[in-house]
Amino acid sequence: MEKEPNEWGPKAWAHLSAVRAQSPLIQCITNYVSMDLVANTLLSAGASPAMLHTIEEIPDFTPHVRALYVNVGTLSANWLPSMKAAAQLASQLGKPWVLDPVAAGASGFRLNACLELVQLKPTVIRGNASEIIALSRASVGPTKGVDSSHESMDAMEAARCLAEASGGIVAVSGAVDIVTDGRRVVGAHNGVPMMQKITATGCSVTALIAAFVAVDPPHAFEATASALSVYGIAGEMGMSMAKGPASLRMHMIDCLHGLDQAALLSRTNITALS
Amino acid sequence: MEKEPNEWGPKAWAHLSAVRAQSPLIQCITNYVSMDLVANTLLSAGASPAMLHTIEEIPDFTPHVRALYVNVGTLSANWLPSMKAAAQLASQLGKPWVLDPVAAGASGFRLNACLELVQLKPTVIRGNASEIIALSRASVGPTKGVDSSHESMDAMEAARCLAEASGGIVAVSGAVDIVTDGRRVVGAHNGVPMMQKITATGCSVTALIAAFVAVDPPHAFEATASALSVYGIAGEMGMSMAKGPASLRMHMIDCLHGLDQAALLSRTNITALS
Amino acid sequence: MEKEPNEWGPKAWAHLSAVRAQSPLIQCITNYVSMDLVANTLLSAGASPAMLHTIEEIPDFTPHVRALYVNVGTLSANWLPSMKAAAQLASQLGKPWVLDPVAAGASGFRLNACLELVQLKPTVIRGNASEIIALSRASVGPTKGVDSSHESMDAMEAARCLAEASGGIVAVSGAVDIVTDGRRVVGAHNGVPMMQKITATGCSVTALIAAFVAVDPPHAFEATASALSVYGIAGEMGMSMAKGPASLRMHMIDCLHGLDQAALLSRTNITALS
Repeated sequence: MEKEPNEWGPKAWAHLSAVRAQSPLIQCITNYVSMDLVANTLLSAGASPAMLHTIEEIPDFTPHVRALYVNVGTLSANWLPSMKAAAQLASQLGKPWVLDPVAAGASGFRLNACLELVQLKPTVIRGNASEIIALSRASVGPTKGVDSSHESMDAMEAARCLAEASGGIVAVSGAVDIVTDGRRVVGAHNGVPMMQKITATGCSVTALIAAFVAVDPPHAFEATASALSVYGIAGEMGMSMAKGPASLRMHMIDCLHGLDQAALLSRTNITALS
Repeated sequence: MEKEPNEWGPKAWAHLSAVRAQSPLIQCITNYVSMDLVANTLLSAGASPAMLHTIEEIPDFTPHVRALYVNVGTLSANWLPSMKAAAQLASQLGKPWVLDPVAAGASGFRLNACLELVQLKPTVIRGNASEIIALSRASVGPTKGVDSSHESMDAMEAARCLAEASGGIVAVSGAVDIVTDGRRVVGAHNGVPMMQKITATGCSVTALIAAFVAVDPPHAFEATASALSVYGIAGEMGMSMAKGPASLRMHMIDCLHGLDQAALLSRTNITALS
Repeated sequence: MEKEPNEWGPKAWAHLSAVRAQSPLIQCITNYVSMDLVANTLLSAGASPAMLHTIEEIPDFTPHVRALYVNVGTLSANWLPSMKAAAQLASQLGKPWVLDPVAAGASGFRLNACLELVQLKPTVIRGNASEIIALSRASVGPTKGVDSSHESMDAMEAARCLAEASGGIVAVSGAVDIVTDGRRVVGAHNGVPMMQKITATGCSVTALIAAFVAVDPPHAFEATASALSVYGIAGEMGMSMAKGPASLRMHMIDCLHGLDQAALLSRTNITALS
């Protein structure tokens, strides 16, 4: 797909600049595997991560954050109440909160937990195709007329249905990242395949979405697409120096930290898909 | 010890190639410290890690994995039941499972937990000399006639006894890694000392063993030796670029990802020890 | 501030050399985010980290360690009893223990937990300015006459009061790190700002303090200042090779591992502040 200059580059730059200028405090209730990369991604982007997950602290702490990030990766019965309490409080206070439904379909326990969280009105849900499809089917039933083997088309339709049902933005990561509010659909084309060989890159881009939405809550759709593109650009630039997944991880974080306007504007590749 | 060309190089290459081709799903119930490196090691090798530890999910999820990895590093009373449930289910379903008895002798609580896990018939147990000696003594009593100060000889004899008693493969990491099924003993000579200055390298090689055994369950002995050698080779190749333990960690993962047949065949160094 | 040659370089070198020679076993009950960097920092410095946090293991294990490190970063109700039990046992056995009161003021629950831990007589408390101020105010009331907007002055006075009240050493990280025993005050001037863009650097330097105090318990004040300076020097040396926070993290650990006497003596920058 040919990239055309459009309004997305300046939007993405505005979001990144706002994160750097405001350093929004982002509460992360995320899985153990991802904590290091999530925190370092947020710091590199200019945000301020706070990894507090304990239910006793939520009433005191969550009111002070700019956004909440919930990720169910290493879900357990004693973390779920915290996730729900924090999400509920964020919703009540009108603060954006973002859900990463890792492996949503891996068990009945996990799928139910994700459905309960979806009912607390996440501002954004980001997953891979199978996660979004599992969640959409469990939320709104099988997508009508879509039983093709084209997973990307399934995912787009599932994302649209889930966005409508949840009232939030839904993003699907893949070769092209899809973002929809149930009506509009855009594709973010940045990124490199080797990012999938690094654990927690999905978790980390969801955290970045939380930071971007934190500085522009009225435009969660645009902020989500911007964050996906910026993270993908950091991956592309890191890839030019990388010799494998571990050096890519390092260069990617460095590039996110150093990303300047010219590079971002020339590389942002977001297009309308519908 | 002079390295002689033998059948091990092609075996190790066959195992690594199978992991890359099949991308086996490996459930990891491992300690907090190691989760990042374990997941990235498995991804670099071509496997597919799943860090699910919650007891509610095991009946749904464990039947879909190719192998299970249990590591007691940051053991606690509320993780142990999950470890046992997953190990039991894996055993019942005939799936390989691998145990890393980190610091087995550090406390009575931990030693008992390890003994309970050993009774669930791990396909492979990998530890360092003191861990295997502690576990062997607690399982089968002091090794007869071995009270020398030569820890490596103690470890070999302890490993043999533990392998016989447990019915599985036992591997002991050290300057030379020892692998035994109670009868055969081989030594894997690859690796560099600085790997011990990186946290969770032991945990990670045990995860790699799980991936190798997953693609060749009938030959767990060979798969274990292959995994130890491949990981050691990645360390050797990484060491040629490293300036310290943190850059070694990075280069090692990159090298594991990029390891090609020629390098592997020329470097694999596994010899019979008995 | 002009650096003058003084006795601190040789002291810092003596502490680092002792850690390398003795490889003290340091029990770490630390937050999930920091575990990887804490363990790798201790290993690079020559110490031996043990990440055991389970209350059942403390009576067996804690008596064997040279020092204990407690960090409340991802505090929860079921970890707090372990922290208190280990701290109490360390105190009873005359072993040094070091507290990192991460985000002490973030919630009532957390502040109370920190106060309970302070009552167990930590050998050293290290935090940033806002953490030390929150803890000092909660321990001894508002610092008299200090209501200026100069946070660094507030912090110094708060540190002094907290040191007097707790009977231990208090360190405050910042542009200049402050160390006080309630009477003496020194500033450690090493380090670079980008270290704050790496998660868990604060946690890691507190772990390093534990290792340094472990090899010189009678001189916890000097050992604390040495550790802060050595960690800062590793950051300075790493910075000369870094292209961003992720490569700084790597080079910093490599430099800590390779730090030699000449570099340390020429760079140590600790001065009396009162």
